[in-house]
Amino acid sequence: MKARKLLMIPGPIEFEPEVLQAMAIPTTSHVAPDFIEVFGHSLELMRTVWKSPKGQPFIIAGTGTLAMDMAAANLIESGDNVLVISSGYFGQRFKDILERYGAKVTLLQAALGQSVSIDSIENELKTKQYKALTLTHVDTSTGIIVDPKPIAQLAKKYKVLSIVDGVCSIAGEELNQDEWGLDVVLTASQKAIGVPPGLALLMASEKAMEVWKNRKTPVPNYYADWGNWLPVMKAYEERKPSYFGTPAVNLIVALETSLKIICKEGIEKRVQRHQSLAKAFRAAITSLKLTILATSNTIAANTLTAVYYPEGIDGAAFSAKMVANNVIIAGGLLPDIKTTYFRVGHMGSVSPNDLLAVLGALERTLSELGYPLEIGKSLQTFQTELLKGSN
Amino acid sequence: MKARKLLMIPGPIEFEPEVLQAMAIPTTSHVAPDFIEVFGHSLELMRTVWKSPKGQPFIIAGTGTLAMDMAAANLIESGDNVLVISSGYFGQRFKDILERYGAKVTLLQAALGQSVSIDSIENELKTKQYKALTLTHVDTSTGIIVDPKPIAQLAKKYKVLSIVDGVCSIAGEELNQDEWGLDVVLTASQKAIGVPPGLALLMASEKAMEVWKNRKTPVPNYYADWGNWLPVMKAYEERKPSYFGTPAVNLIVALETSLKIICKEGIEKRVQRHQSLAKAFRAAITSLKLTILATSNTIAANTLTAVYYPEGIDGAAFSAKMVANNVIIAGGLLPDIKTTYFRVGHMGSVSPNDLLAVLGALERTLSELGYPLEIGKSLQTFQTELLKGSN
Repeated sequence: MKARKLLMIPGPIEFEPEVLQAMAIPTTSHVAPDFIEVFGHSLELMRTVWKSPKGQPFIIAGTGTLAMDMAAANLIESGDNVLVISSGYFGQRFKDILERYGAKVTLLQAALGQSVSIDSIENELKTKQYKALTLTHVDTSTGIIVDPKPIAQLAKKYKVLSIVDGVCSIAGEELNQDEWGLDVVLTASQKAIGVPPGLALLMASEKAMEVWKNRKTPVPNYYADWGNWLPVMKAYEERKPSYFGTPAVNLIVALETSLKIICKEGIEKRVQRHQSLAKAFRAAITSLKLTILATSNTIAANTLTAVYYPEGIDGAAFSAKMVANNVIIAGGLLPDIKTTYFRVGHMGSVSPNDLLAVLGALERTLSELGYPLEIGKSLQTFQTELLKGSN
Repeated sequence: MKARKLLMIPGPIEFEPEVLQAMAIPTTSHVAPDFIEVFGHSLELMRTVWKSPKGQPFIIAGTGTLAMDMAAANLIESGDNVLVISSGYFGQRFKDILERYGAKVTLLQAALGQSVSIDSIENELKTKQYKALTLTHVDTSTGIIVDPKPIAQLAKKYKVLSIVDGVCSIAGEELNQDEWGLDVVLTASQKAIGVPPGLALLMASEKAMEVWKNRKTPVPNYYADWGNWLPVMKAYEERKPSYFGTPAVNLIVALETSLKIICKEGIEKRVQRHQSLAKAFRAAITSLKLTILATSNTIAANTLTAVYYPEGIDGAAFSAKMVANNVIIAGGLLPDIKTTYFRVGHMGSVSPNDLLAVLGALERTLSELGYPLEIGKSLQTFQTELLKGSN
């Protein structure tokens, strides 16, 4: 039997062979004309994927947390009020980061399996002048999606900067930064962007850059300071050599490769593919009488699905059997209930065949563990739903 | 003719084929047992290369500047006195970083082509209680090396933390962190460590960790905070799964590959190879009547050499002809004189044949530009010196 196991966690994901090949190119100088072209083009392609011709893109070596840190360190000054809208683990992460820079944070935490209502956000925005709000577009810990569009409208109404943690959404979920009026949209390379981990990606609106320029105090974090990186990003986009810190050459060549693949598919088509695959996958999971963490389809993400273990099934035994069945899925991440659920990533280059493999392994695993199920039912449901979607 | 050009800049360098292949592995989960072993082993191998069994290693996605930022943000509190010992551009970089965290910095800047004398360092340490001193082991902008050992002794005598920017030295120059008593030794992946850019590497002594633990104020930089990463590094070294930010999986697999190559060669042998190649290269450069930026051999680095253009030779024309001769070298980096010199990196997997290629291209380039020289002289000198060294 093939030893190769399918990596179906919510990042890192399965990457395209061309992207992995790009990782192995003989590294060029960071100021070589070929590389300047690759870096400049990657910045331009980010504008296409983010739908932000007016934004300022940043590509920096680091993790998704660095991207969050950049947003907070550059835009927040001590004493600023910030509203954090959370539907999982990563709202708390943003709160921790913001507080490090002196923000007074109000955390609106959704109940488990739910998202924060628009009304409660508006009610909170009425109570005082906020400098910014943050939202987790898709929370990787819960698989819950939040629609940034109405929240961006509220942000505009109450003159608040809107910051989107798009780590688990960008290039997989619908987003239109300029039209919706989002001020910062950030992500990491290893999720739906489809590049091995190591790059923080961020797009800042003209308003965000203006707020940064008009700071009263210096940015309290040196590495994350846009002042260091802005001239470099501008130079590369103008195809000129520049230096601040050595860019992660191979990762950026891989990034251009993946962004080209994304733009060739077309961002609308790509989002639709994520939506139809996720919908069919949720139907298949439900057909097995398993419970999805997101309590309604309207707030279920299209990039991953979090599912409770059925009663009596032990997580460790489950994961081990899934691996034996050649599929790697992720455990839970929410501290209080992490042993009670698992997560399947379905983003980036994910195909129907990948999800059939997951469902096949899942049926065999559950059956081996004594869970009663109709063999083949989830596969049939998946196929049926997928064909429905495409008709 | 072969199109492939030899990359002889002071980082990124020519990487070993096995390291580049490791970059392209299908990415695994960051908590997969195989990857936990790779990460844990890389941390252990760092201890061998740094000669620091007692140190605490950190491997974080970012550039060398992030490693400097980590040292400053974790160890310095507002108002601390810090002495920066500089023999080029990167002392100023450290000053900028340290001041961002409120340090009162005294910069001891060496005259061009020289290093700061031990006496002047001791005189300065007598004037007030410093919290820390920083030194650039090899300054990438000038090719000047500073011996950390006597400075570490002074640091001990005056109860000052010693921080070494080893970005252009670690795994190429002699260093013995524990025996010499250095508190922080940091580097980046793309230099003598031999891994494509994207990883910041840092080793902190027990004393440094103690100083960090006893801070009176929180670390003012979230991403760089050791508090976030320490449990993760400890867990990986104990071969346990852990999570804070997704590690740069492929880069870390490449790092383990390169650290294994380094340890197989043996760190003493590797340093000797750098020393003998650099010595022969400097002799060859001098035989062409070119002037090296470092004013004496005792302060000339073994990882790169900075050389003034001969009078009448234009840097842009020179670089273009070198590229046409299939060798990529770097221009100057010191702002005031950057157009007057070039830099050749010779670190990592560098071989005698690489440096013969550089000298061959250099002779042809200079000859084509009308510089009078005895053709073959530098090659002959290089060979002769190299054989002398090995006898």
